[in-house]
Amino acid sequence: MSAYRQIVLASRPRGVPTSSDFRLEEGPIPVAERGQVLVRTLYLSLDPYMRGQMNAATPDPIEIGATMAGEVVAEILQSTHPAYRPGELVLAMTGWRTHAAIEASGLRRLDPGQTPVTTALGVLGMPGFAAYTGMKLIGQPKEGETVVVAAASGPVGSLVGQLAQLAGARAVGIAGGAAKCAYVRDELGFDAVVDRRAGGLPQALARACPDGIDVYFESVGGPVWQAVLPLLNRYARVPVCGLIGFYNGVPRSNRDMLPATMMTIVRRSLLVQGYINTEFVADHYADFLQEVGALVASGRVRYREDIVEGLEAAPEAFIGMLSGRNFGKLLIRVG
Amino acid sequence: MSAYRQIVLASRPRGVPTSSDFRLEEGPIPVAERGQVLVRTLYLSLDPYMRGQMNAATPDPIEIGATMAGEVVAEILQSTHPAYRPGELVLAMTGWRTHAAIEASGLRRLDPGQTPVTTALGVLGMPGFAAYTGMKLIGQPKEGETVVVAAASGPVGSLVGQLAQLAGARAVGIAGGAAKCAYVRDELGFDAVVDRRAGGLPQALARACPDGIDVYFESVGGPVWQAVLPLLNRYARVPVCGLIGFYNGVPRSNRDMLPATMMTIVRRSLLVQGYINTEFVADHYADFLQEVGALVASGRVRYREDIVEGLEAAPEAFIGMLSGRNFGKLLIRVG
Repeated sequence: MSAYRQIVLASRPRGVPTSSDFRLEEGPIPVAERGQVLVRTLYLSLDPYMRGQMNAATPDPIEIGATMAGEVVAEILQSTHPAYRPGELVLAMTGWRTHAAIEASGLRRLDPGQTPVTTALGVLGMPGFAAYTGMKLIGQPKEGETVVVAAASGPVGSLVGQLAQLAGARAVGIAGGAAKCAYVRDELGFDAVVDRRAGGLPQALARACPDGIDVYFESVGGPVWQAVLPLLNRYARVPVCGLIGFYNGVPRSNRDMLPATMMTIVRRSLLVQGYINTEFVADHYADFLQEVGALVASGRVRYREDIVEGLEAAPEAFIGMLSGRNFGKLLIRVG
Repeated sequence: MSAYRQIVLASRPRGVPTSSDFRLEEGPIPVAERGQVLVRTLYLSLDPYMRGQMNAATPDPIEIGATMAGEVVAEILQSTHPAYRPGELVLAMTGWRTHAAIEASGLRRLDPGQTPVTTALGVLGMPGFAAYTGMKLIGQPKEGETVVVAAASGPVGSLVGQLAQLAGARAVGIAGGAAKCAYVRDELGFDAVVDRRAGGLPQALARACPDGIDVYFESVGGPVWQAVLPLLNRYARVPVCGLIGFYNGVPRSNRDMLPATMMTIVRRSLLVQGYINTEFVADHYADFLQEVGALVASGRVRYREDIVEGLEAAPEAFIGMLSGRNFGKLLIRVG
């Protein structure tokens, strides 16, 4: 591993990305200029939102030929900044690459003694913060209510359900396949779980929610929403964190499902609110790290990581994640 | 007018109601029993929500053969209750009928000296309260923001825009036809108005909202929503008060418009919230009457009534309202 490597966007995917949409490039390791640090990536986080940045028509597109964006846990190799020394671990937005020379001002120092540093990209990072803010600020589950979350074995969904239970609510997860369902039920301890691949999702979800649904944490869209909609109780809250089911393009349909959704919103006085977790960093990130950090450190909140070896494996792992092939928070071990 | 008359639901309409879905019945004027008062209807309010109650699959359906429900301004003819005397005017839910013997406990006394009693069914009644709560609790317009409302000449929309301006926001109305648009612009004083019947609604609305839309007060659904969606700013709020465009049935469409709406909700961090104004009566009705009552009494808030003569005319007037034929708050003068 003598040289710098990075993965760039080779072409904009139409629909499902393929490996040819990415390109591995090599070159000399950069040098830290004044005020910068040189870091070596240890772990790269792969997250669904990255699919959106591969499109041209998005607020923050990645240019063709530019490094794929992404958050990493990295080790400082060289520092020109007095606040950082070689050997320290930091969280940084350097993208899909082995090394980066970056401004020290945007870094957050990690303490490996508290919780494993990989958690800074998952349960104690942006995915966990998305779960925390969606539930705390929008979902607001109450004692005895029913909370449903899809992608329940993933880094966002797993925390959503556990936070629901900590609030005294019933957690019902939706996951794809028997192994993920078993994990959600037996290891995370959700009150019920429904396998979205087993067929009959609307009926199975109705059986799992005999008192209806008070909070639905939306991150997938499509068929899951259609199963959820008739079960939503009056005054139900729907934080909309993402729509992974639409990121590769919207499946063709010859039925307009919007009127039924809007009619349910008004008839049942629903609250449907989209949000992006970064909106809430200034006001809530410190509380999140303290509250959920303590829950993770004590073992009351559990999480799972799916770690893939080597930067070269990132494109395939990312493509697989978009169809749910990962099992837990997807990370690339780069260093 | 020697006998009691009422209009009952003769059959459940499929799609647009027809006059044969209603039936006029006559009979003896009822007598007030112990604790009751006998009232004579002066004005009957016709409102879009009544279309929903004509369906079987609704939370509170009107039974076939039962009196059409509705709120009225009525005069007390006879009272067995110490709190009410003949000649007093009250607000009551007696339905589409000339007389009713009702429990005194559900009545609200009206003071004809303050504002015309008809306002208790419009700008100072449930339509006005729907505008007030939708804006105060959900829309929350701020100085310099842009607020768009459809059905802008109607009893809800006209107050929405005027409340927006009182909050320092820009009010943009959508109305059907030149006469209504002229009223919204010249008499209500909205900052801009768009004629939804003139064609090119998306383009015209975009021109009227050069800074995008921060609050869209939704009461119609369908094509107006499709014109609004691309203009919604980040953090825009959408109180969903009703969907008159869907009450007679959902127009056939072979395109699924839901994914675009959901993607916009998450990308722009939108708040979309349905509500029914009666949810807020206990907490906010007194404030509403005080605040908006003063604005109406001083002439700072304007309103328009469309008064049709005679109970027999109610079915045709109601059918016309569902396609926007009324111009202002639709009332039937019964007495």
